[in-house]
Amino acid sequence: MEKGISSVEVLPSKSSQVTAVKVVVKEPETKQTQRGKRVGFVLVHAGAGYHSESKAKEYKHVCKRACQKAIEKLQAGALATDAVTAALIELEDSPFTNAGLGSNLNLLGEIECDASIMDGKSLNFGAVGALSGIKNPVSVANRLLCEGQKGKLSAGRIPPCFLVGEGAYRWAVDHGIPACPPGIMATRFSLAAFKRNKRKLELAEKVETDLIQLKKRRQSNEKGSRVLCRACGRLPVVVGKGGDHIELFSLENDSGTLDTVGAVVVDQEGNVAAAVSSGGLALKHPGRVGQAALYGCGCWAENTGAHNPYSTAVSTSGCGEHLVRTILARECSCALQTEDAHQALLETMQNKFIGSPFLANEDGVLGGVIVLRSCRCSAEPESSQEKPTLLVEFLWSHTTESMCVGYMSAQDGKAKTHISRLPPGAVAGQSVAIEGGVCRLESPESS
Amino acid sequence: MEKGISSVEVLPSKSSQVTAVKVVVKEPETKQTQRGKRVGFVLVHAGAGYHSESKAKEYKHVCKRACQKAIEKLQAGALATDAVTAALIELEDSPFTNAGLGSNLNLLGEIECDASIMDGKSLNFGAVGALSGIKNPVSVANRLLCEGQKGKLSAGRIPPCFLVGEGAYRWAVDHGIPACPPGIMATRFSLAAFKRNKRKLELAEKVETDLIQLKKRRQSNEKGSRVLCRACGRLPVVVGKGGDHIELFSLENDSGTLDTVGAVVVDQEGNVAAAVSSGGLALKHPGRVGQAALYGCGCWAENTGAHNPYSTAVSTSGCGEHLVRTILARECSCALQTEDAHQALLETMQNKFIGSPFLANEDGVLGGVIVLRSCRCSAEPESSQEKPTLLVEFLWSHTTESMCVGYMSAQDGKAKTHISRLPPGAVAGQSVAIEGGVCRLESPESS
Repeated sequence: MEKGISSVEVLPSKSSQVTAVKVVVKEPETKQTQRGKRVGFVLVHAGAGYHSESKAKEYKHVCKRACQKAIEKLQAGALATDAVTAALIELEDSPFTNAGLGSNLNLLGEIECDASIMDGKSLNFGAVGALSGIKNPVSVANRLLCEGQKGKLSAGRIPPCFLVGEGAYRWAVDHGIPACPPGIMATRFSLAAFKRNKRKLELAEKVETDLIQLKKRRQSNEKGSRVLCRACGRLPVVVGKGGDHIELFSLENDSGTLDTVGAVVVDQEGNVAAAVSSGGLALKHPGRVGQAALYGCGCWAENTGAHNPYSTAVSTSGCGEHLVRTILARECSCALQTEDAHQALLETMQNKFIGSPFLANEDGVLGGVIVLRSCRCSAEPESSQEKPTLLVEFLWSHTTESMCVGYMSAQDGKAKTHISRLPPGAVAGQSVAIEGGVCRLESPESS
Repeated sequence: MEKGISSVEVLPSKSSQVTAVKVVVKEPETKQTQRGKRVGFVLVHAGAGYHSESKAKEYKHVCKRACQKAIEKLQAGALATDAVTAALIELEDSPFTNAGLGSNLNLLGEIECDASIMDGKSLNFGAVGALSGIKNPVSVANRLLCEGQKGKLSAGRIPPCFLVGEGAYRWAVDHGIPACPPGIMATRFSLAAFKRNKRKLELAEKVETDLIQLKKRRQSNEKGSRVLCRACGRLPVVVGKGGDHIELFSLENDSGTLDTVGAVVVDQEGNVAAAVSSGGLALKHPGRVGQAALYGCGCWAENTGAHNPYSTAVSTSGCGEHLVRTILARECSCALQTEDAHQALLETMQNKFIGSPFLANEDGVLGGVIVLRSCRCSAEPESSQEKPTLLVEFLWSHTTESMCVGYMSAQDGKAKTHISRLPPGAVAGQSVAIEGGVCRLESPESS
């Protein structure tokens, strides 16, 4: 059996459209606080979308590295927010993810990124939207959060928690975050995808123009004229919802490039943090801001409190507009305060996301979440000692074809990674996959 | 008694810090559907902040005009979203409000506006953030909402619902919304306030520099040196939380210029819409986006549905960061689904705003909301006829010194306006004022 994993339990599906795997991770007690430092647990993802087998290795590899970076930070005594930022920087730096380096290009061929971070302890939040010219947008979001914690600015001004565009860039540079020439952010892959998408868009627009012309001619009693589509030589009348042509011109958004990245962290004291970063939709309009920058939508973190028996951290991925309109990160966090985390998340994804009245007109609802929740409890029943333990439950769930995740606790030598897929026959946008596990972290003072 | 008002009932205060006035507006049945057009009800506000008696007349006047514009639209058969937009345009065009024309200037002396709108029927949302060069930001938000309703763009692209900065400006101009030279947006008042604020900021920063120097000297064993503040000639050691100097340098944000504007509308069919517009905080960092642009924070509208017995519409005003972190508009809307609207709103303002754990570190929590909710019910008990009636309850509540509101139904000859104030002895940021009324609208087919 793999190190650190005591059992893998496949749960019976709640319905034919739900797959549920429960991975129970039990920490080896002897290795507890090996370095005597503050430690914890991290769960990351490299996007909810479609991950081909050929790409799987790269996605898993970057998730593994991101987990390691976060754990290294926690072992060095860093805050949960700094650990989650370290994971995100690694994910942003990968050319395979749609965040930071290699982000989708917008209509003008520029990269504009969204990112945000939330600290469960202070409940502070930092976010940037439509930010260009900075290699790691999450580092600006984290810096906004940190500056916000310092209290008011001179003359009683309230520090900003959300900055966009040129102003966000200026603020970052003024706060010592280095500028990055735009040319460096685009990769061979992202530039090639941009060119393919632009060509598809031009073809689609030609077809639309032809359709309008055809309609006009028909209105002028030129019925029966068989104007062929300039793009593909076929009759353009079949273009539209459910039509034939439309698939020819669909951008690469729909499947492969919804790879917003995110991470959730809990440290040994039970402080949680969550972060998210995204290059946004391919060929988006300049200035478009998606869920990754929006409070309650991209990420959420909330330590245990008077009204919360659990600390929770959530990060979302997928179609920004769907995640915004359902305020999905906060919705998941609220739901996780009930007893059964697995059931709560499943119901949220089914009723508050796929079945949301806010998305009633959508053909399919595409998204994914990673969540963790933790609470203090006594040690395992079989243990004779009364050691205080942090119980960490972690889950991922998605309505997209697949989602690539990685997770690691400070006691693991390396991260575990997994590409979660919808069960055979399930329809992306209409079905939910849900998996996860449990991990126990003993308090440092108990070793 | 005033036309259209049957009774004004002052409710007993729930606590010494709460004032509650209930205004009952009863529509004269004989004038129902005078023009035979689709009609409804509108509630607007010109900001939660501090409104001096000298300014009161201007604020009331613009609220009155905004109500009239919305009702004119409803009478002409317009959608609730178009009616609420018409009210907002009037509020934005006033040089006295901090929205559109006459908005607060940012650190660089520029105007950057936030605005958003939500349609309770389609649940669609449109928003702009940090938008310069457009006279009426709300019209861009409304256009984004309208374009979003049309479905996907060419090549299956998802239409944006939130645009910021230069990209938002480009989109607006490309969609036929005229550009406005920046010089026109600033008024004599806003420019004068900017100059005063800049001077205060410079003074505050000088004091801070002196403080740092003083600290350094003390650390170098130059104890006892009496370096005077360059700004005011006094010893700068008293600057800080609870200190003397700080008040000298506080910007005009704190009291008079939190005047984000908003409106909520219900049409005769019970469709609701809400909108909000703001110039943001004085001397804000360029690119800062506040609650007026953020989903769930600035406005909310949701028609009655399977899970909602009531249609609700909410618009918020005040300190953007406080309204964002509590997602106040959506929070109020959810709360209003319980039976007693007045009690629900009061508890939300007390527990989810002033008492929010998300604002635990704030000295005072400044904000205000206008809300309306409606439901179909049978006609008044004393009526012999079985006329279907739309019952509209409307409320405003604030923790700021004052809030200026106006309201009108299609049967009123003119709007009613009111400056709501905290009760004597109540502390702004820690106390809640709440007032409102009830209005019955009969369905056109019943007349």
